[in-house]
Amino acid sequence: MTRYQHLAGLLEQRIEQGLYQSGERLPSVRALSTEHGVSISTVQQAYHLLETRQLIMPQPRSGYFVTPRKATPPVPALTRPAQRPVEITQWESVLELVNVRLETNVLKFGSGMPDVSQPTIKPLWKEMSRLCQYQDARILQYDSVYGVPALREQIARLTVDCGCQLTQDDIVITTGCQEALFVAVRAVCQPGDIVAVESPAFPGTMQILRGLDIKAIEIPTDSVTGISLEALRLALDQWPIKAVLLVPSCNNPLGFIMPDARKKSLVTLAQHFDIAIIEDDAYGELAYEYPRPRAIKSFDEDGRVLLCSSFSKNLAPGLRVGWIAPGRYLERVIHTKYISTGSTVVQPQLAVAEFIRQGHYQPHLRRMRAQYKANLSTFTCWVREYFPSNICVSRPQGGFLMWIELPEYFDSLKLSREVRKAGIQIAAGSLFSASGKYRNCIRLNYANRFTEEMREGLRIVGNEVAKMMHTFPDQNAP
Amino acid sequence: MTRYQHLAGLLEQRIEQGLYQSGERLPSVRALSTEHGVSISTVQQAYHLLETRQLIMPQPRSGYFVTPRKATPPVPALTRPAQRPVEITQWESVLELVNVRLETNVLKFGSGMPDVSQPTIKPLWKEMSRLCQYQDARILQYDSVYGVPALREQIARLTVDCGCQLTQDDIVITTGCQEALFVAVRAVCQPGDIVAVESPAFPGTMQILRGLDIKAIEIPTDSVTGISLEALRLALDQWPIKAVLLVPSCNNPLGFIMPDARKKSLVTLAQHFDIAIIEDDAYGELAYEYPRPRAIKSFDEDGRVLLCSSFSKNLAPGLRVGWIAPGRYLERVIHTKYISTGSTVVQPQLAVAEFIRQGHYQPHLRRMRAQYKANLSTFTCWVREYFPSNICVSRPQGGFLMWIELPEYFDSLKLSREVRKAGIQIAAGSLFSASGKYRNCIRLNYANRFTEEMREGLRIVGNEVAKMMHTFPDQNAP
Repeated sequence: MTRYQHLAGLLEQRIEQGLYQSGERLPSVRALSTEHGVSISTVQQAYHLLETRQLIMPQPRSGYFVTPRKATPPVPALTRPAQRPVEITQWESVLELVNVRLETNVLKFGSGMPDVSQPTIKPLWKEMSRLCQYQDARILQYDSVYGVPALREQIARLTVDCGCQLTQDDIVITTGCQEALFVAVRAVCQPGDIVAVESPAFPGTMQILRGLDIKAIEIPTDSVTGISLEALRLALDQWPIKAVLLVPSCNNPLGFIMPDARKKSLVTLAQHFDIAIIEDDAYGELAYEYPRPRAIKSFDEDGRVLLCSSFSKNLAPGLRVGWIAPGRYLERVIHTKYISTGSTVVQPQLAVAEFIRQGHYQPHLRRMRAQYKANLSTFTCWVREYFPSNICVSRPQGGFLMWIELPEYFDSLKLSREVRKAGIQIAAGSLFSASGKYRNCIRLNYANRFTEEMREGLRIVGNEVAKMMHTFPDQNAP
Repeated sequence: MTRYQHLAGLLEQRIEQGLYQSGERLPSVRALSTEHGVSISTVQQAYHLLETRQLIMPQPRSGYFVTPRKATPPVPALTRPAQRPVEITQWESVLELVNVRLETNVLKFGSGMPDVSQPTIKPLWKEMSRLCQYQDARILQYDSVYGVPALREQIARLTVDCGCQLTQDDIVITTGCQEALFVAVRAVCQPGDIVAVESPAFPGTMQILRGLDIKAIEIPTDSVTGISLEALRLALDQWPIKAVLLVPSCNNPLGFIMPDARKKSLVTLAQHFDIAIIEDDAYGELAYEYPRPRAIKSFDEDGRVLLCSSFSKNLAPGLRVGWIAPGRYLERVIHTKYISTGSTVVQPQLAVAEFIRQGHYQPHLRRMRAQYKANLSTFTCWVREYFPSNICVSRPQGGFLMWIELPEYFDSLKLSREVRKAGIQIAAGSLFSASGKYRNCIRLNYANRFTEEMREGLRIVGNEVAKMMHTFPDQNAP
């Protein structure tokens, strides 16, 4: 840690402890320099850092002040979706959201893109180049339906970190986590079946259910501890549910990590009702605390958990390298994999395998986790600063996605259209519900290194929210 | 044309014309050298070429002889599958076949691999390297669900050659032709539906039907003109068929090109019965005659033809770049594409687009067509030489796959197991039928440049066939 970071840490502590109070003027640069025996420029750098993080703000010709603190917004309460199987809607809105992918000059707060610009990813580029330069013939040939053995071996090793004991024979490579989830749902369900999902839930999975003619039953979900097992049990009692599909570690969109005890209880519940668990671990490696959370799969005793993941969030989504450990459903998974894509593209598989083998993956993960964690703190500050105060904000424990709940009457689809005019994309909450609930919510991406443009973008979104709230003056209570 | 090639051509003509008769001794090297005023080594090269092509054979210390000519085997007759909807079986055999992909030291006559070793493919390697070296950020990011626009534009241009008028907005990129066919079937059919297929038919497609709970009705197919429209009409009269799925240009496995008039009639028939046509054109660009055959899609008037293809057979399957022009089914195709794989891997798309844009694609196709055509003639010679005479052999008009029909009682699965012990893989005919017909047939791949090892391999297969025929002496009539 450099000197200025140390000083910034000290000052932050004092602000937190109330030694410097909200709105109070801070000591001059010179005074601090004397007090701590550091150079003027060190103090300036420290102040600059705190400013970036919105903890302090400069006043022209008056020095720095502690940013007026609004109360930390509460986290969203337990959700209360309709407790009956519903058909999935929202496809048009989902397509609209993903269609923005190729547009440039759009600030993409709505996307699920990780930051792929960090130097720790360079060895991957190098390996991909090398494979082409040496004209590795495997790249041009059909791969096995199961995927490249070297990669499956590396993945099996990685899963030790989430508490699993898998071998390469338990792993099938897929075209991103999306294909893993698709083959998983197909392996477990028939058209007309019912699947239990978290609520809110990842739109990509819900559209799989829609496409396969499966109904979803949305289970109340807590923004800190995850799916309500009590509500799930009630649903299982009442409906012939075939599987529960969830993102238990660094949830998309809520960011929670389901506690181990609850993960274990879920497996017991699944055994009792003899249902499958489809576990989407796409963000699990990006938990802010080390060691990473255990997978539900690690509690699996009889192969009923289908663990799905990918390198899309941890490395880069354009590689389309995902995987599934399908337990007892291996045979059905292989058939679907064969008929839907035949095999997976080879070069990225070889490159990722080598990237991991050479030891580049863990340093990369550490870097990204640290970045996303730091970004979260700044982003939360910005949201507090620019958004009205009667909102709820998630406290992600990993990943790079934030869920904001606005007052109940709020229309985030309208907000989304408004800010789009200013070149800003956000994800409207209704995409995360089978039946279009959460119209008053939005999901924001904070993966990338922050720029002034991003801060300005968020300010615009916040202003627009305030303006739209203003048009409903009677309903403005939280 | 070099001098020795010219001489070889002359000698071949004489053999064809019967000036040198079957089994006759050819002039000595010295005599020919004098006769044609060329060097000894030129004559030796010419003889060597003719030997490779099995037209002549050396006898130790006696010089060269015209290879004893067996009669050219007839083509297989019109097939006669059961004319009722059947469930698809054969999955275990298909999986066994594709599982050989990663094995080395196996002579893969059973595979669908093109030759990817030709120098005309080098610019593709170069472009793939370049994209990595310059760290083109698009490679790491999510692609649009539709695919890379530059590639879709190039594909739209290419389809002019098969008589279509498409724009990039009509094209969706897929993970190989397999995903194109998968999304096509899903776009058109529901579980329980019936689809008409050629017989024999590509196992990959039939397994799609199996996976989606769709029955196949196998339509009699001629090895020269393709699916019997008469039989198809009868089937359409009798059954509620939703679509017909076929490989009309350079068929897999029969190698025919359906005549234009029949392609057009098929469209009329489809209109009359209001069914969709799923056209698999994976091999269409590899027709031996130029210009390439028209696509059925070129006769499409109301968007009922879903044209599926890829760069797997024309460039390299490991890239997993395929595409579909789904006509009126675009919306359903996009939904399936989104839920099954999200988007397609980016780098190969960019590389292929640039390969085409820079003008490398047509020279490569010309080279491959010429190679496959030349290989066919040699391969046919070898088959004539090494196989018993009571067989039928297809006359492929493009591609690199040969279909051999052995006497009716023959068990090619047993043959397949026998030659596998000698490190040779062949594709048993029963894989190409929904109900396990064509047990007496095999499909062989002749894509690669020939080696002595391949000739020896084919000789072993032929010997094994003869041996197995011998064990049924009473049934040995053709």
